[in-house]
Amino acid sequence: MTEFGFIESLRTLCADLPPGGFEGIGDDCAVLPLGDGQALVFTADLLTEGVHFLREATTPEELGAKALAVNLSDVAAMGARPVATLLSLALPPDATDEWAARFMQGYHALSARYGTALVGGDTTRSEQGITINVTAIGRADEKHLKRRSAAREGDILLVTGPLGASGAGLRDILAGRYDTPLAALHRSPLPQVAEGQWLGTRREVHAMMDLSDGLASDVRHIMEQSGTGAAIELTQIPVAEGSDLRTAACGGEDYQLLLTAAPEAAEKLTADFAQRFGAPLYPVGRIEPGDGLRWLRDGTETELDWRGFTHY
Amino acid sequence: MTEFGFIESLRTLCADLPPGGFEGIGDDCAVLPLGDGQALVFTADLLTEGVHFLREATTPEELGAKALAVNLSDVAAMGARPVATLLSLALPPDATDEWAARFMQGYHALSARYGTALVGGDTTRSEQGITINVTAIGRADEKHLKRRSAAREGDILLVTGPLGASGAGLRDILAGRYDTPLAALHRSPLPQVAEGQWLGTRREVHAMMDLSDGLASDVRHIMEQSGTGAAIELTQIPVAEGSDLRTAACGGEDYQLLLTAAPEAAEKLTADFAQRFGAPLYPVGRIEPGDGLRWLRDGTETELDWRGFTHY
Repeated sequence: MTEFGFIESLRTLCADLPPGGFEGIGDDCAVLPLGDGQALVFTADLLTEGVHFLREATTPEELGAKALAVNLSDVAAMGARPVATLLSLALPPDATDEWAARFMQGYHALSARYGTALVGGDTTRSEQGITINVTAIGRADEKHLKRRSAAREGDILLVTGPLGASGAGLRDILAGRYDTPLAALHRSPLPQVAEGQWLGTRREVHAMMDLSDGLASDVRHIMEQSGTGAAIELTQIPVAEGSDLRTAACGGEDYQLLLTAAPEAAEKLTADFAQRFGAPLYPVGRIEPGDGLRWLRDGTETELDWRGFTHY
Repeated sequence: MTEFGFIESLRTLCADLPPGGFEGIGDDCAVLPLGDGQALVFTADLLTEGVHFLREATTPEELGAKALAVNLSDVAAMGARPVATLLSLALPPDATDEWAARFMQGYHALSARYGTALVGGDTTRSEQGITINVTAIGRADEKHLKRRSAAREGDILLVTGPLGASGAGLRDILAGRYDTPLAALHRSPLPQVAEGQWLGTRREVHAMMDLSDGLASDVRHIMEQSGTGAAIELTQIPVAEGSDLRTAACGGEDYQLLLTAAPEAAEKLTADFAQRFGAPLYPVGRIEPGDGLRWLRDGTETELDWRGFTHY
């Protein structure tokens, strides 16, 4: 069973449970409206050694920060402000006290940077391998929440920054080159926390999510949830320095945001974004009728079987 | 570093982070007051193979239910109603699709029994060993929340049921006897969900927590948080059938509730509890001045160095 297959069966199995005030599954975060115009959002990510990271290829500080960052990214992708986290950490006998203390330093530093509290969690032994689960809690005005299902035909697809750095860095790491600038970017992603909240306040932004599995994979979630197709213009994909087009389209863990915006407002949105954050939004395609993903090169359709990213 | 040592350093390190509207760490759950008299509570528990369970000694259904149960127990211990959970599951190559499907059946059945939604989570591969993290979310009237810090000198210490069954069952399992009734109780704890909520509504109940590490260990959390001592009367500890006094006092994972109640109201509370749930509350001791734990046998102090439970 694939990860997505398992999640799909889970969703089916659990559809008969009472919702407890929550909206359904299907976004970067679960949403709990509070009834006063505010909502809380919740997300959890599990990182396991050998699958999501190699201990010898990362410092404990980097790993502590990254375990938090990937969750803050999910909160930002909803247009919400992260407020608190719960951290669960399983440590094997060969992870020293010093390793654990340094992991926490990294977790703490990123928590301080984004102003999130650590409110709970669990620590335990493991027989083998480090496992980390972070649950992040965010808050937003309900009307500012952005969902994967809100894309409309004709919307412009935009991303918040160059893509492919993390994927190229992963390639370096797998080749044993841990000290390249791209490898460092792979280990230390910066979640778009301020950007996500700002985009949440803009009504012309319709759907939003974070790019964790790669553009080629993640855009399909927006298409499925919104019931639309999409076209991506290859020449418009912003390729990070040192990476390449295919890695930018298919590599994972960039943690940039992918959004759709009303076409008539996209230019103004991009200009305002650039003024606020010093860098533009990058248009990469368009939401279309139908249910397929089309790859274009200078406007002409080209056959590509590009998919997203799988872990180590 | 011990688990408690690590949590203590964590708490110190993270004390400078903004609280995000949450109360401080120190209870079974983190508490987020919503400002309208309601509060949400949050808890997370991580289970790792070989430490918290042996795959050959449990069915997948039992494990799915137990991973949920230990979290619902924490919510109940606050006097709150569990409403939703996030489930993170890391599966190694030797855990089959059938195993995963049966795990989910167990998780689903207990979710249905207590009416909790599954609102998110994560599934991933692991290199070795199954790891499960559950985050549970509960809701309560703020005035019904029970905290470890609320015990008062003179309070009666009470437990909601016989103790030691789980500890004796664990002993059976470690001796390779997986099919005894006590082993089954160890694998399938029933969280005191209705009992916790009912006790939450009673003003004469002061402090409350769940018994996960054993009475001898857990009562010290109430003492520390409340700044009191305590005395436990050995002859009053309700010993589960097939267990023994020391296991009842020191064995973990019974998931009964431990509470303190105003002495003048304890008898009426117990009678009302028995009427509502068909079984009494069991008085096991008293909150005292000072900061020590005294063991009494028929009122006479006896020297015991009994501590709580450690996992496999």
